[in-house]
This record gives sequence, C-alpha cells and structure tokens, in this order.
Amino acid sequence: MIERVRGFRDSYPEDMLPRQKMFDVMRETARKFYFSQIEIPSLEYLDLYRVKSGEELLTQTFSFTDKGGRELTMIPEATPSVVRMLTSRKDLKKPVKWFCLPKLWRYEEPQSGRSREHTQFNADIFGDGSVYADAEIIGLACSTLDKLGLSGKYKVRINDRMLMEKLLRDIGISDISRGYSLIDHYRKLSAEEFKSLLLELCEDREKADFLLQLLGKEIKLDQLGSKFPEKFKKENGEIISRLLNTGKLVTTITDAELVYDASVVRGLGYYTGIVFEGFDTAGEFRSIFGGGRYNNLGQLIAGTQVEAVGFGMGDAVLELLLKKNNLWVLTEKESSFGVCTVGDEAILTAYELATKIRRLGYAVNVDTSQASLSNQLKKAASNSLTHTIIIGPKELRDNVLTIRDMNSGKQFTGKMEDLDNLIKSMAS
Amino acid sequence: MIERVRGFRDSYPEDMLPRQKMFDVMRETARKFYFSQIEIPSLEYLDLYRVKSGEELLTQTFSFTDKGGRELTMIPEATPSVVRMLTSRKDLKKPVKWFCLPKLWRYEEPQSGRSREHTQFNADIFGDGSVYADAEIIGLACSTLDKLGLSGKYKVRINDRMLMEKLLRDIGISDISRGYSLIDHYRKLSAEEFKSLLLELCEDREKADFLLQLLGKEIKLDQLGSKFPEKFKKENGEIISRLLNTGKLVTTITDAELVYDASVVRGLGYYTGIVFEGFDTAGEFRSIFGGGRYNNLGQLIAGTQVEAVGFGMGDAVLELLLKKNNLWVLTEKESSFGVCTVGDEAILTAYELATKIRRLGYAVNVDTSQASLSNQLKKAASNSLTHTIIIGPKELRDNVLTIRDMNSGKQFTGKMEDLDNLIKSMAS
Repeated sequence: MIERVRGFRDSYPEDMLPRQKMFDVMRETARKFYFSQIEIPSLEYLDLYRVKSGEELLTQTFSFTDKGGRELTMIPEATPSVVRMLTSRKDLKKPVKWFCLPKLWRYEEPQSGRSREHTQFNADIFGDGSVYADAEIIGLACSTLDKLGLSGKYKVRINDRMLMEKLLRDIGISDISRGYSLIDHYRKLSAEEFKSLLLELCEDREKADFLLQLLGKEIKLDQLGSKFPEKFKKENGEIISRLLNTGKLVTTITDAELVYDASVVRGLGYYTGIVFEGFDTAGEFRSIFGGGRYNNLGQLIAGTQVEAVGFGMGDAVLELLLKKNNLWVLTEKESSFGVCTVGDEAILTAYELATKIRRLGYAVNVDTSQASLSNQLKKAASNSLTHTIIIGPKELRDNVLTIRDMNSGKQFTGKMEDLDNLIKSMAS
Repeated sequence: MIERVRGFRDSYPEDMLPRQKMFDVMRETARKFYFSQIEIPSLEYLDLYRVKSGEELLTQTFSFTDKGGRELTMIPEATPSVVRMLTSRKDLKKPVKWFCLPKLWRYEEPQSGRSREHTQFNADIFGDGSVYADAEIIGLACSTLDKLGLSGKYKVRINDRMLMEKLLRDIGISDISRGYSLIDHYRKLSAEEFKSLLLELCEDREKADFLLQLLGKEIKLDQLGSKFPEKFKKENGEIISRLLNTGKLVTTITDAELVYDASVVRGLGYYTGIVFEGFDTAGEFRSIFGGGRYNNLGQLIAGTQVEAVGFGMGDAVLELLLKKNNLWVLTEKESSFGVCTVGDEAILTAYELATKIRRLGYAVNVDTSQASLSNQLKKAASNSLTHTIIIGPKELRDNVLTIRDMNSGKQFTGKMEDLDNLIKSMAS
C-alpha cells in the first residue's frame, strides 16, 4: 500500500465542488476588475528567490538539482515568476493587471491552514505607482471575500514600509531589515522576549517605548495622526496622508474594515510601500491574504524598474474560514438526469437519449448496471440526480419514455420524439 | 537576468484566455457525463510508478530525495494517484466517475506538442467492467473534442490488449510484455528494423507475417472479422464482438470515426483490455488523447481489485490542433466598461461607479493615469473595452455621466442616479 506524501491533500468531489466554486469566484471577481489571467511555470531556478524573498523562505522550498546540475525549485510563491514574465516582455502597455491561480509548495511542518501544497489567488498591478492601484488591489482582495459571503467577518490590517522605516530610524534602529524581521515575529514572541530583542537593536533605548506602545494595537485610520508625535507627523505627512487616502478609496469598493497595525510588515524582503494582511475578525486563523507594494523587484530580477503592487490569497485558510461560517457548500442543484435501463437492448437507446439531453445542456448519468429497477432508482436518488428516465422493453416497444421528478415523485410519460420538450418542461 | 527553465511555459493572457476556454469545455463536458472533479497531489512517492508504469516513464521524471530520505517525484501521469485515492476510500459507491485537470511533468527533450510541464484532462470510470463504460469513456473524450469544434478532424484508433496477447501467442511470441513494448515502437522504427526485432521474439518465424500485415493498417470495425483466420476468429469471438459493440455504442455518443489499429498498444504497463488513441486525421501531431482499461492497477497499488477504464488528454497537442484549425480564439466579447477620469476628484466617484457596475456583473477598468482624455480613450479602445464612461469636473458638477459605445461611437448621457438602467441599456 503506497501512501500519500505527508502534508499533501487528496481532494474528493465533496471538497472539490466548493473549492471549484471558490476558484470561480476568484476568477470572476478578477475579471470584473479587468484583470487578465496568466499562468506561471511550476519550476524555477532557485536563484529567482535568492536575496529577493528573505532567508526563511529559502529553507522551506522543495528544491533539487536537475541532471544538468542546475538548482531548481518548485515555486514557493508567485510574485518572482510574475515579475520575470512581466519584465521579459517589452511590448506590454502599462498599467498591466494580471492574476493567476498557481499551486505553490512549501517544505515546512504541516499544520491547520497550511499544507505543503496549496493554490494561491495572486493579483498584481504593474506600472501604476499611485494610491489608486494600492486601493484597487486591496479592493479586489476584499471584493473576492465579500462575494464568497464573508462580509463583516474579516478585517484588513495595513502599514507602510516607508513609514515603518522612519519609525525604526526614529527610535534609533539603523539595521532596518533586521528591524523588519524582528517585527515580523512580533506575534510569535512573548512581550518580554520581543522587548529585549528590540532593545538590543535600538541605539537609543529610551525611544523604544514609543514603538512598543504602537505595536499590536489596531488603530482606526482617522485616528492615525494623533498617535504620532507632532514632529514625526509633520516630517512624514505625505506617507500618512497616502495611507488615509487609500482607506478612503477602499471604502468606495468594499465595506471591509481597514485598520492601521504597526506589527504588519510582511516577511518577504521586497516590499517598498504599503503592506497589508486580511484576517478573520475572531483572530482564529492565519492571515487570509497578504501583499503590498514592491517597486524594486523588477530591478532585482531583470534590471528593469517597475512599479508594482499585489496580493496573494491562499486557499487553505480561506477554506477553514468558509467552513467555519457554513459557506463551504456544494453548488446549487442543477437539473441532472439519470437514465435507468431494463434489458440489454435498452442501453443503446439510453445512450442515444443521453447524448441528446447532454446536447440540450444537462448532465446525464446512464445506469448500465442491469440491477433491478428499484435499486437503480435508489442509486439515482443517492447520486443527487434531480430526474430519472426509465427505459425498458415496454418503453422501447411503444417508443415512449417515463421521466420522474426525484423531488416531487411526479411522473410524466411522453413520446420519444418529443424528448426536447419533455426535458425542458421537467427541467425548467 | 534570470531565465525561465527550459521546457517550461510562460502563458500570457492572449494564450491563457483560449486555454481557459478549453479547460472550461473539458470541465463542462465531464459534468454533462456526470463525472465529478477531484484533485490529486503534485508530489508522490516514486514507488507509486515503479513496475506499474513502464521503465521508460521512470527515467523521465523530475524526482528527488527529500530531507527525510524519501524518493519523491513530480507526478508524470495522473492514473496511479487517482487509483490510490479511489482505493483508500472504502465508502464510495461504485461505479465512480471522476475527472481531474492536474499538471504533469516529464523530464525529456522538449519538442512540438510536448513541453516538460503540461495540464492533462483525465477521466476514469471505476467499478464498471462493461463495454458501456469503455464506450462512455471514449464518448466523453470525443464529445470534448466535438465541443471544441474538432468534429471530423480526428479519429480514434482502438485495439484490445487481450486480443493482442492472443495474436502475439498465435504467432509464437511468449514474452508478451516485450511484444507490447516492441509494437509500441512500431511507428518509430523502419519496416526492416521492426521486422528483424519481431523475428527475434518469434519462436515460429513463419507466422510473423500475419502480424506484419495487420500492423499499421486502419481497419474499419465492420471488416475486423474478415482480417483474421477463421480459427483465430472463432477462438476469440467474444473479444472481437466486444470491440464491435464498443464501436456501435460510441456512435450513439459521437460521430467520430473509430478504426481498429493493431499497432496501438499504449506504452504503459498496466492496461488489461481496450486501448485507444485519438489523433488528428492528417496524422500531423502526436496523439490527442489515449487510454484504456486497466483492471489490475488497484491490485498493484493497494491490493484491491477494481475495474477501471480511463483516458488522459494533454493540453499541448490539443492547442496545436486548435491553432491549426483557427479554433484557438479569445472568448466572445462581453460588455466591459472603461472609466476615464479628468481631475483628481473624479477618481473617487469613478471607483464608486465602478463598484456599482461590477456588482451588476460587468468588468470595469478605471483609468487613473490622469493622461489626457483622448489618450485615455485610445487606451480604452486598445484594451478592447466595449464601453467608456467619462467623468470630469463638468459631470461631477451636474451629477451626470457620459457613456460611449466604443464600437458604434454612439454616446449617451444620463443622470448618475439612473446608472443601473443606463448600463443595462448600453450593455444589452
């Protein structure tokens, strides 16, 4: 007996139906925001992630050396590939709005909301450095959750890397990337651990208090200004007002609550402006989506500067959240026909009928088991078929068919040649 | 500059749109045949493919050893995973009809119609050993091609492994799997090479002629009987008549041409009954789909006997064939709205409008570039937007909006509060 690889999922129809519906909502919502779908390869050179993504990520990849001695990796995130694709095409007119739904792989301990393979809804706007693009990207992420029925059940925490850099310098931290890396672990450390690590980084320990007070608080955007000292506020007025503007624009797109949270800095190395994370209001799960502005990644990957903002939304946490809210449900019941047959001869006719009904647009299952009619009808009911058609020797002789509505139990007999009308009248 | 890995594809919107349409047709057709979608993992233990799949396949995988010393492989085919999933669930009621659309990977020389990563439409029926299941599987593959517009442009070659075994024994070949392996290479070898290799295998060289005459000919199914010696025909009447019945049933589902072809045996080791391959009538490309009956794979993988028949249809050859027939086209043009803005203030209103129109179900692109109106209109046209809405200081002051049909150039002005009706009247 050969087992499934640990941390990987087998998805059976009862899970795939809601998951397909979720992917459909993602595709459909992206389309409404006029994003175009692309597809990225599942394997890339490991070099694509060196420097750009942060050290933690590199240790968590499924990487190997191919027969030609090249280091390859199963992609752990989508953004570097998308940027590689963008920068390798000089003919594209900006702004470019793309989305994709790749599988991603991480070699880390499987746990709730994190398996070693997942599908991510990824969306980016390239060539637009404005606050509008920031707002539209957050708006798309939120609209997708809204459409899935999650309105009011999630919040978005935002921050800005530029503002954060100023804050860190202001309290005497000069190694900015170590500062980000520490803050990114804020929620994983105890208050004391965090404080002592922060003080180690701070050249001026007196000032650290200010950051400690700010961290971990969710601040309403309209109160953001009052949280900073006047001097800091004046010096960074532009960044602060950009954040406020983002909030105002996002509310034209979604009702989702937006809060400022200084602890949101995102683990990846490449962000340069706004950063954000969506999470469930109850704070029960990991973040539902995350992203931000990353204007330097094009430079790092291909030597081409390109303004960029985007997000990634994994399917695993979303699935947990939808299940918790009873929103992980099968699609609405469409009309579907089971054909039950009695006798060998009926089967040829059954397939002829099935083909006609399929061409009318309905799903048809032909039962060829030659089991008793009552067993076939039972199976049709347990298969969730909405209608059953019975064909046996009598029907063949008289050139008729019997259709049964499996819900009401109502039966209907008609001539075989009237099939189209019979089906339409039952299915409508 | 970091390149794409050789043999992998970057898919831009101009290719992804037709490809998505193709996948939609696959999903939709499977649904009409009442198949349910499942999803298989991208990584499996290499052991899952040992013995079961044939030696050639094993040398062509992206395999590696993980940190725990386990040999893993990026899946080169779907069937073993699907069977693993089926046999690990004892509660499923048979027959089970499943499909999936996994990515598959092969480490081999990239060439036309074969890249190192492709998506495969895979469908199987489990727990039904009858000719009806064989016919339905072929019917589903053909109906998918029909729906894509390929009717008349492809054929299906069928054979039966049981019949082939009898033929091989009849001409004095006792090493059956070597016989299959040789015949599988029939089209790759010259006639002389093939003949000499066949004679080596034959214990009775006189008889080899019969197989040589049969191979490479496409035989109409109703003439199949006449091609065999009377004695052989009598001894194998059941297998021959099952093939004829399959043909008859398939014609109730599709008009596709079905022919007998003794050279079709399929490379994989696990087939036990009918085997088939779809290919373009011109014979220009590799096979479009292939499959067959494999009743022993459950036994090999999990010690559970399960009747099974299925096919795989890769997206790469299909893409070439659709392109050749001018069927690789963008989806029909749906109404889509571009919003052009003049002045900063208009943008907030633009997003409010965009959100309303998206909720009505249409795609909206907001132009935030603040370029000149004529440049924005040019961009909207080149973006294939069907309608443009203009909002500037005048529109804001008067609470109106102007909608332009980009096809006819017709304009329409109305009150902002009448948005719903304006949009519907333009879009209908």
